[in-house]
Amino acid sequence: MAKRAFKYVGHSVARVDGLEKVTGQAKFVGDIAVPGMLYGKILRSTFPHARIRSIDALQAEALPGVVAVLTAADIGDLNPIYNGRPVIAMDKVRYIGEPVAAVAAEDLATAEEALGLIHVDYEELPATVGIEAAIKPGAPLVHDDKAGNIGTHEKVARGNVDEGFAQSDVIAEDHFTFPMVYHYAMEPHSAIAHVDENEITVWSSAQHPFQVRGDIAKVFKVPAAQVRIIINYLGGGYGSKSYTKFEPLVVALARKAQRPVRICNSVGESMVTVRRHGARVRIKTGVKNDGTIMAREAEIYLDTGGYDDNGPQVTARSATRVLGPYWIPNIHTNAYQVYTNTGSAGSYRAIGAPQVIYAGESQIEILAAKLGMDPAELRAKNLLKKGQELRPGLKGIDADLASSLKTLVRASHWKKSLKKKGAAVGMGCAVTNAGATPVSVALIRMQSDGVANIAAGSTEMGQGVRTTLTQIAAEELTLPMEQFRMLGADTKVTPYDSSTGSSRSTTLMGTAVQKAARDLKQQFIKIGAQTMAVKPNQVHVADGALVCGESRLTFKEAFERRFGKGSGGEMIGRGEAGPEITNNELPVFWEVGMGSAEVEIDRDTGAVKLKKFISVADVGKAIHPEHCIAQEEGAAMQGIGHTFFEQLIYDNGQLINPNLVDYRIPTFSEVPEEFHTVLVENGDGPGPFGVRGMAEGGILSVAPAVCNAIDRATGVRIRDLPLTPERVWRALRDAGK
Amino acid sequence: MAKRAFKYVGHSVARVDGLEKVTGQAKFVGDIAVPGMLYGKILRSTFPHARIRSIDALQAEALPGVVAVLTAADIGDLNPIYNGRPVIAMDKVRYIGEPVAAVAAEDLATAEEALGLIHVDYEELPATVGIEAAIKPGAPLVHDDKAGNIGTHEKVARGNVDEGFAQSDVIAEDHFTFPMVYHYAMEPHSAIAHVDENEITVWSSAQHPFQVRGDIAKVFKVPAAQVRIIINYLGGGYGSKSYTKFEPLVVALARKAQRPVRICNSVGESMVTVRRHGARVRIKTGVKNDGTIMAREAEIYLDTGGYDDNGPQVTARSATRVLGPYWIPNIHTNAYQVYTNTGSAGSYRAIGAPQVIYAGESQIEILAAKLGMDPAELRAKNLLKKGQELRPGLKGIDADLASSLKTLVRASHWKKSLKKKGAAVGMGCAVTNAGATPVSVALIRMQSDGVANIAAGSTEMGQGVRTTLTQIAAEELTLPMEQFRMLGADTKVTPYDSSTGSSRSTTLMGTAVQKAARDLKQQFIKIGAQTMAVKPNQVHVADGALVCGESRLTFKEAFERRFGKGSGGEMIGRGEAGPEITNNELPVFWEVGMGSAEVEIDRDTGAVKLKKFISVADVGKAIHPEHCIAQEEGAAMQGIGHTFFEQLIYDNGQLINPNLVDYRIPTFSEVPEEFHTVLVENGDGPGPFGVRGMAEGGILSVAPAVCNAIDRATGVRIRDLPLTPERVWRALRDAGK
Repeated sequence: MAKRAFKYVGHSVARVDGLEKVTGQAKFVGDIAVPGMLYGKILRSTFPHARIRSIDALQAEALPGVVAVLTAADIGDLNPIYNGRPVIAMDKVRYIGEPVAAVAAEDLATAEEALGLIHVDYEELPATVGIEAAIKPGAPLVHDDKAGNIGTHEKVARGNVDEGFAQSDVIAEDHFTFPMVYHYAMEPHSAIAHVDENEITVWSSAQHPFQVRGDIAKVFKVPAAQVRIIINYLGGGYGSKSYTKFEPLVVALARKAQRPVRICNSVGESMVTVRRHGARVRIKTGVKNDGTIMAREAEIYLDTGGYDDNGPQVTARSATRVLGPYWIPNIHTNAYQVYTNTGSAGSYRAIGAPQVIYAGESQIEILAAKLGMDPAELRAKNLLKKGQELRPGLKGIDADLASSLKTLVRASHWKKSLKKKGAAVGMGCAVTNAGATPVSVALIRMQSDGVANIAAGSTEMGQGVRTTLTQIAAEELTLPMEQFRMLGADTKVTPYDSSTGSSRSTTLMGTAVQKAARDLKQQFIKIGAQTMAVKPNQVHVADGALVCGESRLTFKEAFERRFGKGSGGEMIGRGEAGPEITNNELPVFWEVGMGSAEVEIDRDTGAVKLKKFISVADVGKAIHPEHCIAQEEGAAMQGIGHTFFEQLIYDNGQLINPNLVDYRIPTFSEVPEEFHTVLVENGDGPGPFGVRGMAEGGILSVAPAVCNAIDRATGVRIRDLPLTPERVWRALRDAGK
Repeated sequence: MAKRAFKYVGHSVARVDGLEKVTGQAKFVGDIAVPGMLYGKILRSTFPHARIRSIDALQAEALPGVVAVLTAADIGDLNPIYNGRPVIAMDKVRYIGEPVAAVAAEDLATAEEALGLIHVDYEELPATVGIEAAIKPGAPLVHDDKAGNIGTHEKVARGNVDEGFAQSDVIAEDHFTFPMVYHYAMEPHSAIAHVDENEITVWSSAQHPFQVRGDIAKVFKVPAAQVRIIINYLGGGYGSKSYTKFEPLVVALARKAQRPVRICNSVGESMVTVRRHGARVRIKTGVKNDGTIMAREAEIYLDTGGYDDNGPQVTARSATRVLGPYWIPNIHTNAYQVYTNTGSAGSYRAIGAPQVIYAGESQIEILAAKLGMDPAELRAKNLLKKGQELRPGLKGIDADLASSLKTLVRASHWKKSLKKKGAAVGMGCAVTNAGATPVSVALIRMQSDGVANIAAGSTEMGQGVRTTLTQIAAEELTLPMEQFRMLGADTKVTPYDSSTGSSRSTTLMGTAVQKAARDLKQQFIKIGAQTMAVKPNQVHVADGALVCGESRLTFKEAFERRFGKGSGGEMIGRGEAGPEITNNELPVFWEVGMGSAEVEIDRDTGAVKLKKFISVADVGKAIHPEHCIAQEEGAAMQGIGHTFFEQLIYDNGQLINPNLVDYRIPTFSEVPEEFHTVLVENGDGPGPFGVRGMAEGGILSVAPAVCNAIDRATGVRIRDLPLTPERVWRALRDAGK
C-alpha cells in the first residue's frame, strides 16, 4: 500500500458520540419514553423443567393499572423464534427464569404487583443440569426430539489422525473445562415495542437490527418491510445482544395492550437470557521431536442451555477454532451442542473460541515442556503461513502470523523472561475465522446545508463504530468530521447490514461507507469538471473543494451548481460491501490474537496475580489506534474475568449468583501492573486502508497464558477455570508443591 | 421520440393506493393516533383587528384534563413563520379567526370547554376589509410597516405600451373582479406534533414536507435534520396545503405539553386559514384591424388577507400570467399584494392565473367582437410559437399551442356552433409558467425479498402520484407494479423534493424516479454481464431479467449473485432531477389549458347552465390517461365553482358563509351534460417519456369561456364573478335584454 498522509484515519480523534455520552444525553432503550408507553414485567418460571398445567391471570388482569397480561394463550398464531423456542413458554418450561407470562401496566410497581397475582400450576419434571448429566444415557430430555440432549454436531476432518498420531514422537491428551459466564454488559436487555395496523416498531438493545427485523417478521408472519427496528445506543454487547432475545415477547405484549410497552431486564434476568457456553474439551495432539505438529483430535461439548440461541453456530465454530493458528496435517474434531435445563447460551466475543483456545494453547505448552522446547519456538515452527489453509473449505490465512508472534516475543521480553528460573510466564496464540456475513450497504446523504448524514445500520455499542465510519467518510471526502452526522441503526432509514458482530463493522460497513463517500466524491468531481470545463480526471479533491490547477470550487458551490442556490436538493452516495470483498471466499478475514502473561502466585493462599499482560493484535491498519487498544484491553479484561473469577453457578437448576456481589468481574485492582497492546499494521486486511477486524482476539490468550505461566513456575497444570484461590491452592497441595 | 410499446406507462392501471382508500384503510392525519396523544383546539380572534391587552388562561389551565394552554407568552423564543406572521398572535390580531391561544387536553370536549375559560382582553382597532378600502389613502394599516397596505409589487415590461397602443386600431379597457374562494379540499388542515430532546416530529396535511421542515427549523431555531415531517395521505390540496400553515403552532403546543398533540381544523377554521386571493383587474389591450395584438397593460390588485402566506409569489405570477398565451410586443403590467383584515390568502391551483386569465380571455373576445373576427382566429393569429418568449426572462414556449387550439376548435365543433344564431359559446386559452423549483431526488431500494421501495418525497393528495411514479419505475425496471412499494413522504426517509405543487411531480419526481430505476437497472446489467461473461451493452432487460442471447438471469438471481443466497443485502438506485432538466432555464415547462363552453341562459331567472364543456390539455405524454382526464375534469369543476357559485363573503371582517350550506360548491347536477377532455400528446415535455405537467390548466378557461358564451348569446358582458342568477338577471335587465 502506498504511504500517504491521512488527516482523520489513523488518528485517535475525539469520539463523535463522546459529548453525548459523557453528558448523559445519549439515550439507551431504558432512557427512551415513547408517548403512551406502558411498563412491562415478566413472570418467570421457578422450575428448571416443568409442564404448565394452567395459568390463571384473572386476578392480575383485574388489578387497576394493568392493561394486559400475556400468556401462551395469546401467541397461538405466532411462529417460534428459533427452532423450538417459543415467544413465551407454551406447554413446558425448560429453565428457571423462562418467561411464562408478562404484564403491561401503567407503572412498574403495578406491573410487579400483578406478577404476584398470576397463578401458574406446574407439574415438575426431572431436570438436567450440567453437560455430564445431560449426555449420560437415560438423562431426562430437555426437548423430546433431541435424543441424548444433543443438538448441532459439527465435525472437521483432514488427513488421517490415526496415522498422524502414529507418526508423532510425543502425544498429549488432556481434558479441560470452561465455566459458563455472563457477558455483563452494563445495559441489561431492554426493548420497547409498538404495534399499529401498518407497522411493528421496536426500539431494542440489539446488535443485529436487520436480523431482529427478519425474526420478528417471521414470528408475526408479516413482511419484513412492515417491521421497523431502531437502535439508538447500546450499552455493551459482546455477543449478548446478537440474535433475537425477548423482542418478540415485548411485541406480543404491546400487540395485546394496543399501547407501546417497555421492558428492561434486571441483571439477574439478563443472566438467564443469555450467557456463554460452558464447555468440556478433550484434546489430543501429536508432535514430532522437532516440534512439528502431526495430528490433533478434539471432542467438545458445549452447554447450550434450554433453547437454541446462537448455539448451533457457536458449536460449529468451536470445531474449527480448536485447531489454533497451526498447520496440522491430520485433524479430527467433533463439537456437540448440549441442551440442559438452564438459561440459553449464545454468542460471546469470539464465539466458541475462548473455551477451545484455552484447551489447545494449554496443551501446546504441555507439549513444549515434554519436548524441552521454547513454547514460542514450538508455535513459530507450526504457525500457518499466508495462504495456508487452517482446514478445508475456508480461505487461506491472510495475515502474517509470524510477524505477530515475533512482535509478541519482542514486546514481552519473552526470551529474557524464560531465562529467569521459575519465571511465571506463559503465552497463548489464536486465529479465528471472522467477519461473519460479508453484506453491508451504506448511504451518505448530503443536504443543502452541507450536513452529510451517514446512513449505516451498524449498532454503536461502545466500540466506536460511528467514529470510525465518520473518520473513513471524512478522509475520503476531505471534509471535517463535524460535517457528518451518523444516523443510528433504523431499518426504515439505514440500508441493510447483516450484523454488528464478529469484528466485521470496520472492514465491511467501513468499505460500504468508503464506497459511498467515493461515489459522492465522483459526483462532485463531475460537477467540478463541467464547471471548470476540464476532464474529470484532471480534478482532484482537497479540503472539501474541487481543485484543478488554480481553479477551486467548494463542495457547497458545486452543490449549488447542481441544484441552484437556495433550492435545497440532496446528493447521495451509495456503497456496498458484498462477498466480492474477498473474492467470494470466507472468512472475510482471519482475526489474530496473541498474548503473554506473567503472574505472581501466593502459595499460601492460592491467589494468583496477573502482573503483566502483553497483547498483540494484527489490525491491518488502525483507523483509530486508541479505540483498537481500548478494545484489545477490554477483551483481555474479559479474559481476565473468566480466567480468574467469573462463573455462573447453578444449584439444582437455580442460578445462585445472579448479581455483582456473588458474580465477580474484574475491577480496576485487577488490571495488570504492566498492560500493553501492540498493534501490527501490515495493511493487508480486506477493509478500507488495509484494515482487518479486531477486538475479539484479545480475549483468547489470557486463560492459556496464565495457566501456562502457573505451570512453568510451579509445575502444576490447572485444567479448569476460573482460577479461584481455592482451586489453585488445592491443585498446589494435591501436587505437593 | 421513438415509438415503443409500453407495458405500464400510458395505461390507466389500477391506483396503487386504490384498495387502501376504498376500504378506508388509508390513514389521514385525523386517523392517526400517536400513543399518548392529546387533543388540541385553537382559540381564535373574534375581532378583525385589535390589540391584545392581556390573556388570562389560569382558569383554563386549572380545568381537569387540560395539559397545556399556549399563548404568546410561550413563543417569545421563536422566529415568525413568514414575514411578520407569528406562530400565535402576539400583541395584535389581524383577522377574525386568527389563533390567539391553544389548548391541549386529554380529550376534545375538555379542550373545547377550556377555550371558553380563556379570557382575552382586546382593544378593538379600525379594520380594513376589501381591496377598495385597503388601498384608499388613509386606510387603517394592517401592518404598520406596510404603507398603503401594499406588500409585494411586481412589474413586467417589454417594449413601449404607449407606442403599442398608438399603433393599435382597436383598444379595449375593462375592469374585472374575481371573488375570494376556498379550495374546499375534503380534509381540513390537520397536524400532529411531538417534540422530544432529539427531534421535532410532525404528521401533517402538507403538500410540501421539505418546505415545512425548513420553516419549522427556522421558527424553532434547530437544524433541519432535527425536524421530521411525515405525510401519509392528504385529502386534497389544490394549493391550500402548500406552504406552512399551523404546524408551528401545534409544535409549540406539543413542546409545552411535553406530549404529542393533534389538532384537526373544522372546515370553518380552514376557511380562515387559507383561501384564494380575490382580485381587481384593470386590463387594456390594443389590436390592429387584422387582429395583431400590439400592446397590453394591466393593473392587478390581489387581496392577500392579514398575513403573508404565498401571497408574494401569487402576486408575482399574476403579473406574467395576465399576458395569456400570446405574443405581445409591448407589455406593462403591475401586480400588487394588498393586506386586509381577513384570513390569509395563498396558493390555489395555477396561482394568480384564474383571476387574470378570466380578465384577459374575456377581453380577447370583446376585441374579437369589435373586430368582427372569429375569436378562435384572433387567438390563433397571436398564439406564441414554440421558442417564442412570453416575456423577457422566461424560457420560450416549449409546446405547440396552435395544435392545442386546433384540437379544441375541432373537438368542440367550434366553427359549426358559431354559425348558429345567438349561439351561447365561448372559449378561453392560457399558458402558465409551471413546474416550480426543479429539484427532486429519489431512491429505489430493493430488498432481498425482491420488494423495491420507492423513496420519493412527493405528497399523495389524490392526484395519483404514487401510481404514476410506480408506473415509471415498473416500466424502466420491467417489473410488475406489485413488486414496488411507495414510501410516503417522510423527510427522514425520503430524499429531498422541493414541493408537491405547480404540476411538477410527474415531470420532476418522475425524472428522479426514472433515473433511480435506470441506475438500479445498470447495476443489474453489470452483474448480468459479469455472470454471462459478456459486455454490459450486450445485456438487455426484459420482464425482470437480464437477457443476452439465450442466457437469462432474473433480478432475483442477480441479487443473490451480488450478495449471496439468503444473505440479505440491498440494491439502491439513485436519481436526481435538477435545473439541467431544462438547461437551467425556467419555467420547467409551460402548462397549457384551453377550453370551450356552451351555456343555456334562463332569461327569466338569470340562471345559467353549463351545457357543454370541452377541455384540451397538452400533457406531452399521458402516463396514466384516466388520471389526466380526471385531473382536467376536476380542475374544470373547480372552475365551474368559482364561475357560478363560490365566494367567501365577509361582513365587517366576519366570514359569514363558513360551511357547505352557505358556501356553494358544484355538485353532480352541475356537471356539464357534455364534458370532454382531449389530451394532446406531442411527447415534447421535459419529463419521462416526454411528459409535461398538467392539472392546473383545466381551471383557467371556464370563467372566461362561460362569460364569453353569455356575451355572444345576449350581448351582455359580465365582469364580476360568480355568475349568481341574481347577478346575471340584473345584468340582463340593466342592458335591457
